[in-house]
Amino acid sequence: MKNINEYLQENRQKLLDELFDLLKIPSVSADPVYAEDVINTANFIKNQLEKIGLDNVSIEKTPGYPIVYAEKIIDEKLPTVLIYGHYDVQPVDPVELWHSDPFKPVIKKTDIHPEGAIFARGSSDDKGQMFMHVKAVEYLLKNDSLPVNVKFMIEGEEEVGSPSLSWYVKRNHEKLKNDVIIISDTGMVANDVPAITTGLRGLSFVEVTVTGPKRDLHSGLYGGAVGNPINILTKMIAQLTDENNHITIPGFYDKVKDLSPEERVEIAKTPFDLENYKKALDVTDVYGEKGYTTLERQSIRPTLDVNGIWGGYTGEGAKTIIPSKAHAKISMRLVPDQDPEEIPGMFEAYFKSIAPKAVKVEVKNLHGGYPYVTPTNHIGYKAAAKAMHKAFGKDPLPIYSGGSIPIVPLFEKELGTKSILMGFGLDSDAIHSPNEHYGVFNYFKGIETLSYFYDYYKNEFTQ
Amino acid sequence: MKNINEYLQENRQKLLDELFDLLKIPSVSADPVYAEDVINTANFIKNQLEKIGLDNVSIEKTPGYPIVYAEKIIDEKLPTVLIYGHYDVQPVDPVELWHSDPFKPVIKKTDIHPEGAIFARGSSDDKGQMFMHVKAVEYLLKNDSLPVNVKFMIEGEEEVGSPSLSWYVKRNHEKLKNDVIIISDTGMVANDVPAITTGLRGLSFVEVTVTGPKRDLHSGLYGGAVGNPINILTKMIAQLTDENNHITIPGFYDKVKDLSPEERVEIAKTPFDLENYKKALDVTDVYGEKGYTTLERQSIRPTLDVNGIWGGYTGEGAKTIIPSKAHAKISMRLVPDQDPEEIPGMFEAYFKSIAPKAVKVEVKNLHGGYPYVTPTNHIGYKAAAKAMHKAFGKDPLPIYSGGSIPIVPLFEKELGTKSILMGFGLDSDAIHSPNEHYGVFNYFKGIETLSYFYDYYKNEFTQ
Repeated sequence: MKNINEYLQENRQKLLDELFDLLKIPSVSADPVYAEDVINTANFIKNQLEKIGLDNVSIEKTPGYPIVYAEKIIDEKLPTVLIYGHYDVQPVDPVELWHSDPFKPVIKKTDIHPEGAIFARGSSDDKGQMFMHVKAVEYLLKNDSLPVNVKFMIEGEEEVGSPSLSWYVKRNHEKLKNDVIIISDTGMVANDVPAITTGLRGLSFVEVTVTGPKRDLHSGLYGGAVGNPINILTKMIAQLTDENNHITIPGFYDKVKDLSPEERVEIAKTPFDLENYKKALDVTDVYGEKGYTTLERQSIRPTLDVNGIWGGYTGEGAKTIIPSKAHAKISMRLVPDQDPEEIPGMFEAYFKSIAPKAVKVEVKNLHGGYPYVTPTNHIGYKAAAKAMHKAFGKDPLPIYSGGSIPIVPLFEKELGTKSILMGFGLDSDAIHSPNEHYGVFNYFKGIETLSYFYDYYKNEFTQ
Repeated sequence: MKNINEYLQENRQKLLDELFDLLKIPSVSADPVYAEDVINTANFIKNQLEKIGLDNVSIEKTPGYPIVYAEKIIDEKLPTVLIYGHYDVQPVDPVELWHSDPFKPVIKKTDIHPEGAIFARGSSDDKGQMFMHVKAVEYLLKNDSLPVNVKFMIEGEEEVGSPSLSWYVKRNHEKLKNDVIIISDTGMVANDVPAITTGLRGLSFVEVTVTGPKRDLHSGLYGGAVGNPINILTKMIAQLTDENNHITIPGFYDKVKDLSPEERVEIAKTPFDLENYKKALDVTDVYGEKGYTTLERQSIRPTLDVNGIWGGYTGEGAKTIIPSKAHAKISMRLVPDQDPEEIPGMFEAYFKSIAPKAVKVEVKNLHGGYPYVTPTNHIGYKAAAKAMHKAFGKDPLPIYSGGSIPIVPLFEKELGTKSILMGFGLDSDAIHSPNEHYGVFNYFKGIETLSYFYDYYKNEFTQ
């Protein structure tokens, strides 16, 4: 059997070319303009999964974009690993800030990636990371050394909140039956500080519309006398947090677990340099909830961020109108045990209660997800940690992530199994931003690590 | 000599057709896409002024769009009336809210205009009103009955703050010499309640940009820990007014004259029905500075309105980013004796003082204008009031307008003469909004009234 590192060396260009072909398809699930590209990407994945020798490969219809399913059942008595990933990507705007075409991948060196990084939308989130799983399993199958059963479930709606995934999972309990789920859609602390994400924040995402007068008005003739929906929206949003950046929605913190001193000590162990952090973002100061550190604020404390705002005249120059409407998209990151089924209702009740009578307020609940925790004594975690140790020469750190992967708590609820979040990205990958990239080192190290996982998992399972 | 009303009756269709031709040219001065159309509109006006028999008609070059000048000097010893108007129009967005093409004028009946109103961008502001002057003088010239000298000065940058007009006026004191200026760019109370605007608010218009991290960030990974420029911008804007909707900028009210009880009684005489006002705007309640009536709030009290706001993801669905930048356009209406040269500095100092260190703040001063008052004992006012009485059968009301025509105080400063604001529009004309329209009644009544003005003015002048 050929050593994984020799194999990666020999197939280096081919493994990059295949990923590039995947990155070239603009599978932006949020924008209907790209509908055909999203479907083409599903077909690309299907072809790959067939080519590497998996069975029952199929494009599974859903109410939205399809899910690509495949499996290799070695022996019914052996444990089964379910691999989840997504083939859709975030929108690219503001596209003018990209230094190269988001869908023409190029390798460029960076300070963090002297070996080069692949610049393309989806390179890190999640095409590049998802594809490592395909390539690791390909290696094991080629060498006839896959020690357990595997199933792939790759979806195309993660970036729009996975609306069809729960529909699909609920209808396919038997087909998706597994002992552990592995997912690479998160990150490490640094290329020499591997990590496994053991906590994820949940999410509630709402869109609000404030309507004042029924038509746009001249701000000279009406200014000062009617409710300007932008003025009022800004006052309402400002009231959602207090002077300590504590969220003011009644009930919002009721289910938030207090941090124990031990947990705070544990979190503080993550390597973190505040000065470098500020320098990388070009900010004079950080900003957040009083009484918590930056690491705590961005991982285990809930948040409220306006992700978009618009209203009135936004073109060149001056237009003196009072607009009829103003809008904002607002997301709240949730922590254990906040409930995304409850939070939007609390938000709406409070937001409407602080509106003056001069406006009408509409709140739409766009999507949500539960917060999540994986214990470090889970055998899936142990196997992943051993694989990382073998590949990186050191134990991974268990870390909390501030991000949300709402499908992870869904899997636990529907399929009864835990997910192991062994991601290989870095914070600096600029996912969801212009110039997203993924280290060439990370891509190959990920394939290597994942190829080790299965043996360790089989051993842990049968112990 | 043919009676004006017989003349208007006979030439009704021709007078409408000519105005329609003018309205068809999309002279949006704020958007460079329409640059050629703006120039074409200047040429259209020039041709009209030549055709009706004026002298020295010329397209006057400026650093921006040209000014159209023309004159008819009957006798150097007679008084001279300068007519000001503008041939540019506001942008049309949101264009999807128009029920007909903004640049294909159509006549439709409305509740307020059973005789029909002309729907087109610029129909009321200001092409329709400016063109009445051309047509009134045409009538007087055709009948050889123009009793005084006239000069026309029609500009193409009013909707972007008249940046070139002061440049031009300062260089042409002699050419523009006059005894009174008449302008129709304001409104009446109703079609049976004629009015002359004796007070105008001034304006300061600024654009602010708040910059947080140097690139858009994933709101899961960074949310709660960095300054989100939208959250912060909303907090900053919210702090510009207090809970009584009083503006909080230090120094802002220092030069505002207190209203005397007599003035408040005078203002309260203007016919106004709060229930109809709310119904017309489809709002449950009005909104404004505590302690003042709606009529006061929209005319003689200063204001602060956000005219546009934008930042982050504003497309379909959810995108969980913290944007790098957020922007707003903010206008302040000023009253005597506030100074538009001072206000933007006060705004900037205060706005920057309330910004947290986590963001950078930029304030651009876009344009401004002084507030203005015309006394009702001015002979130009008296002549205009008599002309209105003859046309409408009743005296006009002297009214304050909340709008700003920054060039009016400029004319007083540079040319030493007062402007008489005899406008024929209505609040319901939806100027600066979708579906702008101008009553057919108002168009013809305006031509009629203006044709009476010159004799009355000559009489007042020579008394």
